[in-house]
Amino acid sequence: MVPRMVLRSPVWLFRWQVACTRGASVPQRTWAGASRTPGPDSTLACTGGLSTSLGTPEVMLTCERYPVRRLPFSVVSEQDLAAFERIVPGRVVTDPAELEAANMDWLRTVRGCSQVLLRPRTAEEVSHILRYCHGRNLAVNPQGGNTGMVGGSVPVFDEIILSTALMNQVIGFHSVSGILVCQAGCILEELSRYVEERDFIMPLDLGAKGSCHIGGNVATNAGGLRFLRYGSLRGTVLGLEVVLADGTVLDCLTSLRKDNTGYDLKQLFIGSEGTLGVITAVSILCPPRPRAVNVAFLGGSGVRLWSGLTGLLLAPSCVCLRPCALAGCPGFPEVLQTFSTCKGMLGEILSAYEFMDAECMQLVGHHLRLTSPVQESPFYVLIETSGSGVAHDAEKLSSFLERVLGCGLVTDGTVATDHSKVKMLWALRERISEALSRDGYVYKYDISLPVERLYDLVTELRTRLGPQAKHVVGYGHLGDGNLHLNVTAEAFSSSLLGALEPYVYEWTAEQRGSISAEHGLGFKKRGVLGYSKPPEALHLMQQLKALLDPKGILNPYKTLPARS
Amino acid sequence: MVPRMVLRSPVWLFRWQVACTRGASVPQRTWAGASRTPGPDSTLACTGGLSTSLGTPEVMLTCERYPVRRLPFSVVSEQDLAAFERIVPGRVVTDPAELEAANMDWLRTVRGCSQVLLRPRTAEEVSHILRYCHGRNLAVNPQGGNTGMVGGSVPVFDEIILSTALMNQVIGFHSVSGILVCQAGCILEELSRYVEERDFIMPLDLGAKGSCHIGGNVATNAGGLRFLRYGSLRGTVLGLEVVLADGTVLDCLTSLRKDNTGYDLKQLFIGSEGTLGVITAVSILCPPRPRAVNVAFLGGSGVRLWSGLTGLLLAPSCVCLRPCALAGCPGFPEVLQTFSTCKGMLGEILSAYEFMDAECMQLVGHHLRLTSPVQESPFYVLIETSGSGVAHDAEKLSSFLERVLGCGLVTDGTVATDHSKVKMLWALRERISEALSRDGYVYKYDISLPVERLYDLVTELRTRLGPQAKHVVGYGHLGDGNLHLNVTAEAFSSSLLGALEPYVYEWTAEQRGSISAEHGLGFKKRGVLGYSKPPEALHLMQQLKALLDPKGILNPYKTLPARS
Repeated sequence: MVPRMVLRSPVWLFRWQVACTRGASVPQRTWAGASRTPGPDSTLACTGGLSTSLGTPEVMLTCERYPVRRLPFSVVSEQDLAAFERIVPGRVVTDPAELEAANMDWLRTVRGCSQVLLRPRTAEEVSHILRYCHGRNLAVNPQGGNTGMVGGSVPVFDEIILSTALMNQVIGFHSVSGILVCQAGCILEELSRYVEERDFIMPLDLGAKGSCHIGGNVATNAGGLRFLRYGSLRGTVLGLEVVLADGTVLDCLTSLRKDNTGYDLKQLFIGSEGTLGVITAVSILCPPRPRAVNVAFLGGSGVRLWSGLTGLLLAPSCVCLRPCALAGCPGFPEVLQTFSTCKGMLGEILSAYEFMDAECMQLVGHHLRLTSPVQESPFYVLIETSGSGVAHDAEKLSSFLERVLGCGLVTDGTVATDHSKVKMLWALRERISEALSRDGYVYKYDISLPVERLYDLVTELRTRLGPQAKHVVGYGHLGDGNLHLNVTAEAFSSSLLGALEPYVYEWTAEQRGSISAEHGLGFKKRGVLGYSKPPEALHLMQQLKALLDPKGILNPYKTLPARS
Repeated sequence: MVPRMVLRSPVWLFRWQVACTRGASVPQRTWAGASRTPGPDSTLACTGGLSTSLGTPEVMLTCERYPVRRLPFSVVSEQDLAAFERIVPGRVVTDPAELEAANMDWLRTVRGCSQVLLRPRTAEEVSHILRYCHGRNLAVNPQGGNTGMVGGSVPVFDEIILSTALMNQVIGFHSVSGILVCQAGCILEELSRYVEERDFIMPLDLGAKGSCHIGGNVATNAGGLRFLRYGSLRGTVLGLEVVLADGTVLDCLTSLRKDNTGYDLKQLFIGSEGTLGVITAVSILCPPRPRAVNVAFLGGSGVRLWSGLTGLLLAPSCVCLRPCALAGCPGFPEVLQTFSTCKGMLGEILSAYEFMDAECMQLVGHHLRLTSPVQESPFYVLIETSGSGVAHDAEKLSSFLERVLGCGLVTDGTVATDHSKVKMLWALRERISEALSRDGYVYKYDISLPVERLYDLVTELRTRLGPQAKHVVGYGHLGDGNLHLNVTAEAFSSSLLGALEPYVYEWTAEQRGSISAEHGLGFKKRGVLGYSKPPEALHLMQQLKALLDPKGILNPYKTLPARS
């Protein structure tokens, strides 16, 4: 899960200070105002490592850590800064402290050395900026909440950071259809609150919701916790406004559920990680908020603890609209059969089906002192429902659990309907990542596989790695065929990495799986795209990039492999 | 609704006979076998109208009826036929009788004069055909079940018809995930049967399901009756295999719910009406079949007739998994409020929300002798639910109806839970089109609008047209914002047409609506694309077409406006 990380700075300083540790071609400066016209020879190129005196531990520059070469883009000059100041007056950020956060990903694994960040408020301003950059051959790194996992949202070198943070206005909401239209920089959690007040919910929910931007969610085709129930953004996003590399504004911001007039251009930009255009506004379909129309049916709100179907407690606590259950399964085939049964019996109210193996449960127990409310099992599944009738949902869940317990698919389980219990069950699943990070160095993979083979890779890796690895664990969104495969060791070792890669990618490719289920490719995984897509597809992707961004100025070094 | 029309011919004749009524450059021939090599000067160009002696009434040739000029493609020669015979031996169709059906749309409004139809069985054969046609500059018209509404699936001139009819194999089905992989020529109804036997349903359902091909459904981004519940094909189609104009096979036929590796190329081909590539196989996610887990709860299967909440009858007839209700509303604002209430209270089980106005009900009554089971009202809504528990669904539906009746949103209604009653209620909605056709000449529009303004156009047109029109009616998928607007008159009149167009398109454009909600553009509506998309979008569409099909051989004269 992505931690909350709010990167909003309330004051936009109109000055820039640059300090480079080596090869510093730029002296430390302070720019007093827009009236000063910098000389033509003054540039802001960052040619080496950028150090900081802000007290944060040093993170190696991406260009030093990875074998990547700067493409022949222009370097930002003082004239450029003056031009930007005319386009977005008072919103040209060059303060190193502010740039530090925007240059680095939240995982602290990649770091660029951009020396300017722009904060447009409108698509028109974005259009002016891109038209200017296109003319000047300046590279641009679009940035939303900077919560990505693959280094896609920060510069690799000195790309201009184009932040959507000030494009944070709701444009409209249709209370009958549930269609929300808003600017790209709106924070997901704020949108959630906005639509929930109007009896709707956002069709996506992420751990990073407190800081991620809806534009970034769309640009990365974010999956998240509601994917199983409400599907992909490719279905729920109804329209987009996008600014192309040359500044053209593409207005496809319709609010229609159905529109078969020509090619669906917005799909090009969903999941393209800012490499084909900058999303400036989004139209999205929100489902109605799950409601408890028949709450009285229960005979009072309550908690139902379920263990071997014998214990039934009713307590007057707060009813949760999303009851969930945790159950133990004797093997992975039973996890799959339980899923099939679950889909059939819970049908439309099923909103999550997550699994974790015994080692995950041991790790959260050992490192976080969380205890499992169900008996020890080789596998655990967490099932969440979300419907319009609490009593109906609870009844369906009970019938389902009776069935799976009766036929031995599940050996033990517990149902939670009140908020605190639900939260407790979810913590067992959501805090696995935290437990892993306390276990040592973690090698992380986010893979999609045919659901039947989802766990085979974990088993095979355990045999392959032997005592080299401390733990090899598998968990994830089984309902979506999404495996989070993690390997821990005392410390980083290149021999262990060599045993993992390309083996993991090759194994995934053999199953026609995806080497990036939901995180995207960004900077870190662009080199392994070929494991999931054939050469013909890569070629067409390169052609699309060349068509939409002929100079390659939009989010360079991302998504597509470097051309040899 | 599209009528059933099965166009499968069991015998593939190895001969061609061509008769042209005027400008016949090709004599009538019989080709005895592949061993005969035709001379280089022999061509099969159809330069004029093609008449038939098969007894069907004459339909005007598209090229005579519409102002369209043939593009400078090559004309099929005897060498070409010999080459095709080598690629798809025994499956080169030149029999005029068979070609007649494939040259004409089922509405009998457009008719091409193609003289050859090819029946490949594999993507490899399609690849060979397209590589050949690309090299020879021969135009190709991909054809599925030929059930389209806008003349997109038949040739305009003499394009080679590339039928997917023999590409009808299921490749695989994953019983846990519900993912179906099949060839493009599989008939939707046969796929439905196949997955229903395995406890799943297809995510789309159409009136034309008896003959439409899944490849054609995807190529036209078909909407249909399950759209409200299961969403767009853009979300449910997981992978495609596509052959590009130059014969390149693009294998993106993955079976993964999540895959964020690079640009989602399959989206380019969904809804592009065969103009960017030929879809040869589809991977699609099927939802679990709605089940009656708690049928005993009802105390027996039954019919519940509901009128003013007083009548409740239980009869031991077959329980329908999709109970539905018909209700009368006093005005369009109440239709909208009922929809909002419905979405909130029925939530996840709502599978259709259709509306029709009083004139529609009068027409089905007058022309088809169907009687409404509810009191006369200005508007009627048909609500269908589809869930995993019959008792739960019926209870939710009752609670909802009590609410809307109590607050005056609905004045009268009836609920049906058995098959025959459900069918009867659906007939009132589904047979409107038939009733209209019996009323005289019909001007038909398929429009998407913001749901709040959905009916305004009907009201305004009644005022605008006055006694020129016999009836102006509105009905459709309100849940999807989709209006079927129909105007009837005693006979066709160009002055009435002039009063309707471009007015209807301009009005739709003012509301940022879509001039084609689900039918696509094909040949007939390509000229009005500009009413729903800005020039920047049209330009990008043209660029995409040029990138993927530089010679423009794939389904020419379709989707995009003619270039001036």
